Amino acid sequence: MSGNTNQVLALAGGVGGAKLAAGLQQLKGGDLIVLVNTADDFEHLGLHISPDLDTVMYTLAGRANKSQGWGLEGETWSFMDQLEGLGGPTWFRLGDRDIATHLLRTQKLAEGIPLSLVTQDLCRAFGVKAKVLPMSNDPVRTIVHSGDLAISFQEYFVRLACGPVVDQLEFRGASSAKRNDEIVGLKASSLDAVVICPSNPYLSIDPILHVPGMRRWLKDQNVPIIAVSPIVAGLAIKGPAAKIMRELGHEPSAKAVAEHYRDLIDGLMIDTSDAGLAAQIEELGIEVRVTNTIMKSNSDRAVLAEAVLRFSSDLKKP
Amino acid sequence: MSGNTNQVLALAGGVGGAKLAAGLQQLKGGDLIVLVNTADDFEHLGLHISPDLDTVMYTLAGRANKSQGWGLEGETWSFMDQLEGLGGPTWFRLGDRDIATHLLRTQKLAEGIPLSLVTQDLCRAFGVKAKVLPMSNDPVRTIVHSGDLAISFQEYFVRLACGPVVDQLEFRGASSAKRNDEIVGLKASSLDAVVICPSNPYLSIDPILHVPGMRRWLKDQNVPIIAVSPIVAGLAIKGPAAKIMRELGHEPSAKAVAEHYRDLIDGLMIDTSDAGLAAQIEELGIEVRVTNTIMKSNSDRAVLAEAVLRFSSDLKKP
Repeated sequence: MSGNTNQVLALAGGVGGAKLAAGLQQLKGGDLIVLVNTADDFEHLGLHISPDLDTVMYTLAGRANKSQGWGLEGETWSFMDQLEGLGGPTWFRLGDRDIATHLLRTQKLAEGIPLSLVTQDLCRAFGVKAKVLPMSNDPVRTIVHSGDLAISFQEYFVRLACGPVVDQLEFRGASSAKRNDEIVGLKASSLDAVVICPSNPYLSIDPILHVPGMRRWLKDQNVPIIAVSPIVAGLAIKGPAAKIMRELGHEPSAKAVAEHYRDLIDGLMIDTSDAGLAAQIEELGIEVRVTNTIMKSNSDRAVLAEAVLRFSSDLKKP
Repeated sequence: MSGNTNQVLALAGGVGGAKLAAGLQQLKGGDLIVLVNTADDFEHLGLHISPDLDTVMYTLAGRANKSQGWGLEGETWSFMDQLEGLGGPTWFRLGDRDIATHLLRTQKLAEGIPLSLVTQDLCRAFGVKAKVLPMSNDPVRTIVHSGDLAISFQEYFVRLACGPVVDQLEFRGASSAKRNDEIVGLKASSLDAVVICPSNPYLSIDPILHVPGMRRWLKDQNVPIIAVSPIVAGLAIKGPAAKIMRELGHEPSAKAVAEHYRDLIDGLMIDTSDAGLAAQIEELGIEVRVTNTIMKSNSDRAVLAEAVLRFSSDLKKP
């Protein structure tokens, strides 16, 4: 842990974003704030499920299931086996351990406790050092428009395995959602850097940026905003980002990511395999740093986090 | 399955009652109706839990956990392990498989489906032949009064392990509960027998009898009402029945059970070990039959069920 009391704010969605957040946590400990997408949240079997909050929380706790890419390590599946036997819905898989998170969250929300406090309690119970904040305590729900269909996000993502062509993404509820109180209440100059983690720009980061006032607030922090490209060599490390970019009319590349974040970011970290795109991205008025962005180990995470913070520091106005 | 289309109604609570119900189901199949105590129901972690309905359902499905005395066979405990690690409440143990029942029930109740239909759906999914009915779709909750304390039933039964002295039992909500519609709607003369299973008379059967109109309706069926004593040789086969009887001022015995049901039953089946009490019970105007009432095997259940139905048949007015 550095002696630096200045905080770092990371915006994150699922797996890729959570990995970089874990790297940042190795460096910043409790001085890391992770602002997490909640537009993937949904109700299933009466449970309030927050997939991105859980992925971030489990990853920061060192409890994420590595082979599976979601859920908890050491998971068992008796509940699902039983549910299947009873003819219940099995398209969304709930592990026996995972259900503890969902039940505790759902019960507390039903008691009127806001999602941010529920998340704080869960993170404390999991031993997470960083502060994990949902982007808003108000419900925002991603709807995938495909032809005449309006598909709720988990239906699209899990049940339909991202099959339908995405014509448009809607973040229902976003326009009336309030920014998380704790973000609103952060003291001026308390942030040292803003990092947009390598999460899906369209599905994970855009919902956060659609919360009214969020972009303005990020700009007003007056610190460099650095994104890490989730697209490497024209491919997404994980998930449907490349497919969605193509469907929305953009050739998937680190450059397209730069264009997408153009009005927001000061710097973009791209992978060494995309070094050839650096000049084109810099023409957009965005600083570029090239490094290995693929995180296979815990130390890869810390190394990338360190590079991101150094980049940010270098970009600071003197 | 007999060719008899006449139905048998059994009143039951937990384990002992469920065993006799399973014996009756072996003989009557779908012509058995089991009316089950729901005054033990409670909300836990946001789940609607119906312990007696579940014990009856699991037992009739042949899926009850025999060594444990409650819950499902082949159960696993990852959820509880996780919940404990998160500092959640662990005094009420929820198995991973069991949670499927609770989640499906809770979700359907939240959708406004009455408990009787939810129970019917669950029983169908479990392959239960008999018709299992909650005593009422309205909430009734047993409160144990002990000194100045008013203790909710599961707190008393599980958390406090039946430790506090019972001064009085209250069935909160009973006076405004409606009898289950399907009981109300049973055609006249469709019942062949009413059997009060060897469940706790105070905690399991009394709540059913406290639903307004229930005693009158049972009497009006004009068929013998037979109880099987849950007290054998002054002891309860399982659970706190003997302790509670003593605390409420009755020496636990098959005779005290007879006195308790005096105004309702026509016959009482008592265990061979209590044969010496037969004459005293008959003096109360209750017919007695002596047999082995301890059910260790599936065939014990059927043999006792057969004896109960024969007793009932013998008591029928010609």
